[in-house]
Amino acid sequence: MSRWLWVSVPASTAALLWAYYLYRWIRAQPGGNARMEEVAGAIREGTSAFIRREYTALAQFVAVISVLIALLLPQPIWATSTPFRNLEMVIAYVLGSAFSALAGYVGIRVATQANVKAAAASTHGIERAFPVGFRGGAVMGLAVVGTSLLGISLVFWATGDPEVLLGFSFGASSLALFAKAGGGIFTKTADIGADLVGKVELGIPEDDPRNPAVIADNVGDNVGDVAGMGADLFDSNVASIVAVLLLGSTLGQVEVPLIFAGLGTVASILGTALVRVRKGDPGQALNSGTYITCVLFGVATLGASYYLGFDLRIWWAAMVGLIAGVIIGLTSEYFTSDVKPPVRMVAGVSQSGPALNIITGFSYGLMSVLPPLTGIGIASAAAYTICNSIGPGYGLFGIGMAAVGMLSIVGMVISNDAYGPIVDNARGIVEQAGLGETALAVTDDLDSAGNTAKAITKGFAIAAAGLTVIALLAAYQDIVKRVSGKAIVFDLMDPLVFLGAMVGLAVPAVFSAMLMLGVGRNANRMIAEIRRQFREIPGLREGLPGVKPDYASCVDIATKGALQELLPATVVAIAITLLIGFIGGVRCLGGYLAGNIFSGLLLALLMANAGGLWDNAKKLVEAGEFGGKGSDAHKAAVVGDTVGDPFKDTAGPSLNTLITVTSLISSLTATLMVMYSVFK
Amino acid sequence: MSRWLWVSVPASTAALLWAYYLYRWIRAQPGGNARMEEVAGAIREGTSAFIRREYTALAQFVAVISVLIALLLPQPIWATSTPFRNLEMVIAYVLGSAFSALAGYVGIRVATQANVKAAAASTHGIERAFPVGFRGGAVMGLAVVGTSLLGISLVFWATGDPEVLLGFSFGASSLALFAKAGGGIFTKTADIGADLVGKVELGIPEDDPRNPAVIADNVGDNVGDVAGMGADLFDSNVASIVAVLLLGSTLGQVEVPLIFAGLGTVASILGTALVRVRKGDPGQALNSGTYITCVLFGVATLGASYYLGFDLRIWWAAMVGLIAGVIIGLTSEYFTSDVKPPVRMVAGVSQSGPALNIITGFSYGLMSVLPPLTGIGIASAAAYTICNSIGPGYGLFGIGMAAVGMLSIVGMVISNDAYGPIVDNARGIVEQAGLGETALAVTDDLDSAGNTAKAITKGFAIAAAGLTVIALLAAYQDIVKRVSGKAIVFDLMDPLVFLGAMVGLAVPAVFSAMLMLGVGRNANRMIAEIRRQFREIPGLREGLPGVKPDYASCVDIATKGALQELLPATVVAIAITLLIGFIGGVRCLGGYLAGNIFSGLLLALLMANAGGLWDNAKKLVEAGEFGGKGSDAHKAAVVGDTVGDPFKDTAGPSLNTLITVTSLISSLTATLMVMYSVFK
Repeated sequence: MSRWLWVSVPASTAALLWAYYLYRWIRAQPGGNARMEEVAGAIREGTSAFIRREYTALAQFVAVISVLIALLLPQPIWATSTPFRNLEMVIAYVLGSAFSALAGYVGIRVATQANVKAAAASTHGIERAFPVGFRGGAVMGLAVVGTSLLGISLVFWATGDPEVLLGFSFGASSLALFAKAGGGIFTKTADIGADLVGKVELGIPEDDPRNPAVIADNVGDNVGDVAGMGADLFDSNVASIVAVLLLGSTLGQVEVPLIFAGLGTVASILGTALVRVRKGDPGQALNSGTYITCVLFGVATLGASYYLGFDLRIWWAAMVGLIAGVIIGLTSEYFTSDVKPPVRMVAGVSQSGPALNIITGFSYGLMSVLPPLTGIGIASAAAYTICNSIGPGYGLFGIGMAAVGMLSIVGMVISNDAYGPIVDNARGIVEQAGLGETALAVTDDLDSAGNTAKAITKGFAIAAAGLTVIALLAAYQDIVKRVSGKAIVFDLMDPLVFLGAMVGLAVPAVFSAMLMLGVGRNANRMIAEIRRQFREIPGLREGLPGVKPDYASCVDIATKGALQELLPATVVAIAITLLIGFIGGVRCLGGYLAGNIFSGLLLALLMANAGGLWDNAKKLVEAGEFGGKGSDAHKAAVVGDTVGDPFKDTAGPSLNTLITVTSLISSLTATLMVMYSVFK
Repeated sequence: MSRWLWVSVPASTAALLWAYYLYRWIRAQPGGNARMEEVAGAIREGTSAFIRREYTALAQFVAVISVLIALLLPQPIWATSTPFRNLEMVIAYVLGSAFSALAGYVGIRVATQANVKAAAASTHGIERAFPVGFRGGAVMGLAVVGTSLLGISLVFWATGDPEVLLGFSFGASSLALFAKAGGGIFTKTADIGADLVGKVELGIPEDDPRNPAVIADNVGDNVGDVAGMGADLFDSNVASIVAVLLLGSTLGQVEVPLIFAGLGTVASILGTALVRVRKGDPGQALNSGTYITCVLFGVATLGASYYLGFDLRIWWAAMVGLIAGVIIGLTSEYFTSDVKPPVRMVAGVSQSGPALNIITGFSYGLMSVLPPLTGIGIASAAAYTICNSIGPGYGLFGIGMAAVGMLSIVGMVISNDAYGPIVDNARGIVEQAGLGETALAVTDDLDSAGNTAKAITKGFAIAAAGLTVIALLAAYQDIVKRVSGKAIVFDLMDPLVFLGAMVGLAVPAVFSAMLMLGVGRNANRMIAEIRRQFREIPGLREGLPGVKPDYASCVDIATKGALQELLPATVVAIAITLLIGFIGGVRCLGGYLAGNIFSGLLLALLMANAGGLWDNAKKLVEAGEFGGKGSDAHKAAVVGDTVGDPFKDTAGPSLNTLITVTSLISSLTATLMVMYSVFK
C-alpha cells in the first residue's frame, strides 16, 4: 500500500467527520420563532426544488455523456485493446459528478439550516451569531475537500491510471458547469426581478415579505454562492491534482501532490477550528483563519518533505502558488473595498448619473486585471524555473504543484465564501420576521464581512483556475505526445495554432454573453410574474395581514429558466471545442485552449471585480455618502449594481469552469483527434 | 531604377493631384449665408486650435524620441560600426510623423470647409449635397494613401533598408497615438458634456446654439473621426507595407507589396471618382464605391502579376486579405445596424431601464467578436498555407501580403469614413443656422449613411490592424534572429513567453481604462464650465437675441484635457513594453506582443461594436419606436449611448494604434534587448 494513501485517506475522512460534527453542532443551536421558521422553511423548500430539478437535468446529461465515454474514451472501443479502460472511465466520470453533487447537497442543506440559527443568534450579539454562520460555511468547505480528495484517492488507488482520473475530473466539471452557470442565472434572475419591481418601481425595501420574488432571491444566494462556488472549487481542486498526477506519473512523482493535498486538508480543518471573532470584527476573523491555514500548510509540507525525502524545490513551487493566491486575492480586495479609492470614485461620479458610474466602474474593472494576470504569469514562471533544475519535465510539473499549493487552502476559502450567503440569508430572515434594529445591525455587520471575503475568494478562484488550466494544457501536450508519438509545440507563429487562439479568444466572450442574455430574458419573465401578483392578489401591495404572495411560482420561473438558458451556452462551447479539434487538429486545439485561457481569465477578472465594485459603490451610497438613499446618485449606483450582478455572479465565475471543461475535453478526446482530425 | 518606383511614385503622386483637384472643386461650391459661415468659422477655428496644440505637443515628443533614436537605434552608437544608420532612422522617423501630420492637416482643413458647403447644398436636395460630403472625405482618403506610399517609396529608395523604414512607421504610429487617443478624448469630452448638461439637465435639443459645448462637439467630430481615423489607417497602411518589406527583403520580394500598394492607390482614385448617389440612397453609393475599388484592385494586381511574372499564390494571399476585410466589415454592420435583431433587441429592453440596456448591449458586443476573430484567424492561416508552398519563409510573408491586400482599398475606406463627420457637421450647421426641415431631413439621411459606413470602417480597421501586427510579430522574430544569430520560437509552454503573454493581455485593458477615466475626468471639467456659463451669462438659457455662449473656452478645456489625459496612458504602455523586454528578454517580449494582440483585438472589437450598437439603439428609439423621444426607454437608451461613446470613439479605436506601437517599439529595440536584457 502506497505511502500517500496513509495521508490522503485519513485526512479526507477527518474532514468529513469534522464536517459532520459541525453539522450536529449547528442543529443543536436554538432555532427561531414561528415566523422565522416559516421564512427559512420557504427558502429551504425553494432550494431543494432547484437542486432536485438541477440534479435531474444533470443526471440526464451524465447518462448521455457516459454512453459516449463508454464508446469513445479514452480510445474508441473499435480501436483499443483495453476496452475495460472505457468502463473505468465511465465509473470515474459518474463518481466525479456524484461526489461533487453530494458535497453540494450537504453544503446547501446545512446552509439553509444555519441561516435561521444565525438569525436567531443575532439577537444575542455578534459573538454568538458569527460562529453559527462560519461553521455553517465550514461544513461546505470541508465536505468539498473531503469528498474531492477521497474520490481521487479511491479512483487512483483502484486504477493507478491518471488518465482515468481525467474522467473523474470531467464529471466534477460537468456538475460545476450546471451548478455555477445554472445557479448564477437563477440567482441573478431573482435578484434583478426583485429589485427592479420591488425597489425601483414600488419603492419597497430589500427583503420585504410582500415581494413575491423575495424567497427566490434568498434561494438564489444559496444555489449560486454556496452550491455554485463549492462545485467550482471542487472542480478546480480536482483538476489541479489530476493535472499534476498526469505530469508527475511520467516522472515517478505522484506521491507529492497527494500528500500535499492531504496536509492542506488537515490545515483547513485546524484553520476552521481556530477561527474566533475578536472585538466584534468578523472580517478580521475570516482573514486570520486564512493566514493560519496558510502557515500550517507551509510548516506541515516542509516537515513532510524533509521526513519523506521530497525535493525541496517542489515544496517551493507549492509555496509560490500559495503566496500568489493570497496576494491576488488581496489585490481584488483593493478594487472592491469601500475604503479604497476605486469604489469611492465610482460612488462619487454616480452624482453625474448612471453613464459615468458605468464607464468609471468598467474602467477600474479593466485596470484590476493587471495585478492578477501578472501574478499568475510570475507564479508560473517562478515555479517552472525553480523545478526545471530538477530535470526535464519538472518545469511544467512545478507549475502544476503551484496550482496544488494555491488550492491547498481551498477548504478554508470555501468556508469563508459559503459564510456569505448564510449571513445574507440570516439578514433576510431578520428583516422578514421583524426581529428589530439590533439584530439587523448585527447581521449587517456579518454580511459586509461576507462581501469582502467573497471578493477575495473570487480573485483566488480565478487565479487557481488559471494555474490549473496551464497545468492541464501541459498535460494535454503530454497526452498528445504519448498518443501520436510526436512532440507538439504550441508555436504562436504556427498558423493553425494562431487560428485556434483567435477562435479560442472569442468563445469565453460568446459563452458569457449567452449566459447574460439568458439572465435578461429570464429576469423579464420574472418581472412579468411579480407585476402580475401585485396586480391580481388583492391587498398584497398594501401588506394587509394574512395576504401572502405566491413565492413558489417565482422560484419555479427562476429554476426552469436557469436550466433552459444554460444549455445552449454549454452546447455551443463544447461544440466549438470539438469542431476546432476535429477540423484543425491537435495543434489548433492547443492554440484554442490557450486563447480560451487568455480571454477567459481576462473577462472573468474584469467581470468579477467590476461587479463587486459596483455592488459596494451602491452600498457606500446607501450608507449615506454622496446623497444617500433615494438621491440621484443612489439611482445611478443601483443601475451600476444591476449591471454588475450578472457580471460577477453569472458570467464571470462561470468562465473558470468553462476553461477547465474545455481543457479536460481536449485531453480526453486527444486520441480521437490524433486519429480523425482533418488537418494534422 | 527599380520597377516598383515606376508604379508607386506615379500612383501616389496621382492620388495627391486628384485630392488637390477635389479640394479645388469643393472650394468652388457655393458657400452658406452669414450665420452658417459664422458657425463653420467657429468649428474651423476650434479645430485649428486643437490641431495646433496637438502638433506642438507631438513635436516635443518627436524631438525627445529623435534624440533617443539617434543614440540607440537600430544599434547604440557606442556599439555600432554604422552610426550613419541611426541618423537615417531619425530622418525616417521625423518624416513618418510629418507626412502623417500633413495628411491629417489637409484632410481636416478640407473637412471643415466641406461641412458648410454640404449644408448649403442640402437645401437643393440629396443629389447635390452628397458629392460635397463624399468628395470632402475623399480628399482625406487620398491624401493619406498618397503621402504614406510616397513617404515609404522615398525612404526605401534612398536607403534600400527596410529596417530604417521601421523608423518611418514608428513616426506614423507616434502621430496616430496622439491623433487617435487625443482626438478620442477630445470628442467624447465635448459630446458627453454637451449631452449631459444640454439634453439631460436642460432638455434643449442636440446642436442647439445656446449650448456652450456645441462647437466643441462639432470640432470633436473632425479631430476624432477625420484626423484620428486618418492617422490610424495611415499608420496601419505603413506598418503593413513595412512588415511585408522586412519579411520580403530576405526572400528578394520587395517589389510585389510596393506595386500592389500602388495599384490599390490607383483603384481608390478610380473608386472615389466613380461614386454616384442613385435613387437618393447615399449608403448604397458608399458601398458600391467600395466594391468597385475591390474589383479594380483584384483585376489590376492579377494583370500585373501575369505581366511582371509574380507568383500567383502571392496574389491569392492579397485577395484572401481583401475578402476577409470586406466580410469582417459586414459582420460589424450586422451587430450595429438598426434593421437587424441586436439593435432592435437593445432598444426594446430599454423599456425595462438602463441596466438591461447596458447588459444586453454589452452581451451583443461580446458576441460580435466571434466572426471577426475567426475571420482574422482563417485569413492568416489561409494566406500562410497558400504561400508556404512557394518556399521557406513565404508563409509569414503571405500573412503580410494579406494585410497589404486588406489595406489596398484604404483610400476608399477613409473616404467613406471621413464623409461621416463632414455630413454630421453639416447637420449641425443646418440646425444652428435654422435652414429648415427639408435641409434637416437631407442631412439626417446623409448622416445615417455615414454612421453605417463608420461601423463597417471600424471593423475593417481593427481587422487590418490584426493582420498587420501578426506580420509585425513575424518581422520582430526575423530581426531577433538576425541580431542574435539564433532562431526564437514563441512557444506558449515556455514560461517566459507565457509570463509575457499574461502581462501583454492586461496592458490594452489598462490603456483603455486610463483613456476612459480621462474622458470621465475631462467631461466633469466640461460639465462644470457649461453649467457656469448658463449660470453666469444672462439671457443665455432663454436664448435672447445677441446673447452668445463662450464656445472657445469649452474648446480650450477639451483640448488641454485631451493632451493631459493622453500622456500617462501612453507612457505606461510604452514603459511596460520596455520593462518586459529588458527584464524578460526577447522571448518574453514576443509573448507580450501576442498577449497585446489578443486582448487588444478582443477589447477593440467589443468596444467598437457595443458602442455602435448603443448609439443606433438610441437613434431607433428617437425615431419613435418603443416609446420614442422623452419616454423612459429613451432615457435608458441615452445612458447606453453615453457609455458607448468612449467605448467606440476613444478606447476601442485607440487599441489598434497601441498594438501597432508596441510591435514597432519591440522590433526597433530588439538589438538592445538582445544585448542588455536581464533574462535571455
